[in-house]
Amino acid sequence: MSFRTIEWRDNKVVMIDQTRLPGEEVYNEYEDFQGVAEAIRGMIIRGAPAIGVAAAMGVALGARDIIADTYESFSRQLANVCDVLARTRPTAVNLFWAIERMKRVAEANRDRDLQFIRETLKAEAIRIEQEDLEICRAIGRHGGQLIREGATVLTHCNAGGLATAGYGTALGVIRAAHEAGKNIQVFADETRPWLQGARLTAWELMKDGIPVTLISDNMAGYFMKKGAITACVVGADRIAANGDTANKIGTYSVAVLAKENKIPFYVAAPVSTLDLSIKSGDDIPIEERHASEVTHLQGLPVAPEGVKVRNPAFDVTPARYIAGIITEKGVVRGDYEKELKALVGQ
Amino acid sequence: MSFRTIEWRDNKVVMIDQTRLPGEEVYNEYEDFQGVAEAIRGMIIRGAPAIGVAAAMGVALGARDIIADTYESFSRQLANVCDVLARTRPTAVNLFWAIERMKRVAEANRDRDLQFIRETLKAEAIRIEQEDLEICRAIGRHGGQLIREGATVLTHCNAGGLATAGYGTALGVIRAAHEAGKNIQVFADETRPWLQGARLTAWELMKDGIPVTLISDNMAGYFMKKGAITACVVGADRIAANGDTANKIGTYSVAVLAKENKIPFYVAAPVSTLDLSIKSGDDIPIEERHASEVTHLQGLPVAPEGVKVRNPAFDVTPARYIAGIITEKGVVRGDYEKELKALVGQ
Repeated sequence: MSFRTIEWRDNKVVMIDQTRLPGEEVYNEYEDFQGVAEAIRGMIIRGAPAIGVAAAMGVALGARDIIADTYESFSRQLANVCDVLARTRPTAVNLFWAIERMKRVAEANRDRDLQFIRETLKAEAIRIEQEDLEICRAIGRHGGQLIREGATVLTHCNAGGLATAGYGTALGVIRAAHEAGKNIQVFADETRPWLQGARLTAWELMKDGIPVTLISDNMAGYFMKKGAITACVVGADRIAANGDTANKIGTYSVAVLAKENKIPFYVAAPVSTLDLSIKSGDDIPIEERHASEVTHLQGLPVAPEGVKVRNPAFDVTPARYIAGIITEKGVVRGDYEKELKALVGQ
Repeated sequence: MSFRTIEWRDNKVVMIDQTRLPGEEVYNEYEDFQGVAEAIRGMIIRGAPAIGVAAAMGVALGARDIIADTYESFSRQLANVCDVLARTRPTAVNLFWAIERMKRVAEANRDRDLQFIRETLKAEAIRIEQEDLEICRAIGRHGGQLIREGATVLTHCNAGGLATAGYGTALGVIRAAHEAGKNIQVFADETRPWLQGARLTAWELMKDGIPVTLISDNMAGYFMKKGAITACVVGADRIAANGDTANKIGTYSVAVLAKENKIPFYVAAPVSTLDLSIKSGDDIPIEERHASEVTHLQGLPVAPEGVKVRNPAFDVTPARYIAGIITEKGVVRGDYEKELKALVGQ
């Protein structure tokens, strides 16, 4: 891929600014964890796996700047760093997963000197980024096989290289099918209100030379009914123990329309997106974002001043609509409760 | 209502410019039929019944300006006026219905002098406008009874006063329930790409003091699944003999989601929207509009330059998803093929 979503460089965290795509390809540098937290909250970086990587790098930056004489003091301050990063966005579980992993690494090395712990945390954050790329390629290997020659795949939001350390989850599946020489094309929902599909997915796929057609979200049903869509693949922000999947608002509608039109609907996500501590999708917290995302476009109003708005950023697709969950360990189907447990070895 | 969608004034056709709402309430004046045709094509005026009124007034303007000595010469030129107006938009049948009605009035008076015919056509256009308002009120009377106390009604696009001579079809149903003292509220889909819901429906309802909440199209399913929506009411651009209904793109998705969540989905439209010459929705022509409606907002790009776009302006909702078609003559349900024929006395 010809862009880099996030990387650790010269003791800074560098991210492509996703709020400015596709118009400008700008890379922002963050020197402290507060900056990384702001970048996550402000959606400079977004997408569940990418948020996980960013949070890990944020923890590493925070750890580097802690002034402490003892592990206890270091640990208390690190807990504060983690709290700030954890409060940025509530729905994607990868954020909490990455923070917990970093905490465990610190704890496992509590008897070493603080400089060693700081270096180990930095290495762990970089490892999470590198692993994520490998995970996406494995998701692509498993999922690519589900995409038939000649397929037209609908995707929603951006579960691409920009949503991960690279390659993508849903777009990883599409990339793998494309790389395998299959003649496929993509329909990208624009994905209101933030337009991840129009601004990010279309941009990524065009860069890679994968044929993409942009539509409004409300056109997906039209093309499904016409028989123009042969499969749907989306990402995930959190998957409950029963397979219910939280993903970008509008995913549920895509799944219902796919079922109605007998089109397979797949979720592609790393195992770190599983939250087996949550029984069903009803318990997944759904972030509600600011009204201005709906009422304003490019800073200009498109609705009457003072109109009441609801803006849930995610919805939950019940497991019964999902034809398969594509992970780096393989494709899970059928009895999700049993199969997801087996996948993580519980 | 505190605005006027379209009227004949001082031998001009005056329309509120719907491309500039809600920011500016501007009234445009059209002095010839070409101007009216441009206004329909450019969506200065939109909404099936309002397009019908505009076309009738366009025919009257055209008739006024024809220079002819004989009825034959007048009639040939009038046919040209009608052709230009008929080519503006393909889906809403009210356009063709209104033009045919005007042609029949001219033909019925072919033995009178041309000045009389011109005056009669002008009177007929104004009558179509006035009738449309009465029809909307009758739709409201029939449909308002279907909306229960405490209801939250989802609507898509704008089937309001702005889509008709006033009062509206879907919003006429909502207005009638509100005027009957029922405590109801509305969820308005913003309706991409043209944002009729955000720009027009929210504006109209706020003017009338009817509680309205604006959402992106892809949020409707979320609120249906949560149980927050108790009914859906939309307008129509053309209804086939079997009840299949063409309406703004995204209507089909609303209907599928409503069925999945056991919420009644109603269509509100005047009898002039019926096209019993068409057997099923498969035969309704669907207008595809310019890509820039999807790629640009407020003139600024929101997608990569050169991205391929599809932009169907309408979709067809099969009759099996429709709980009732609300017309000025009553509510049709069940066997649409039989009941719609009976409604028009065939």
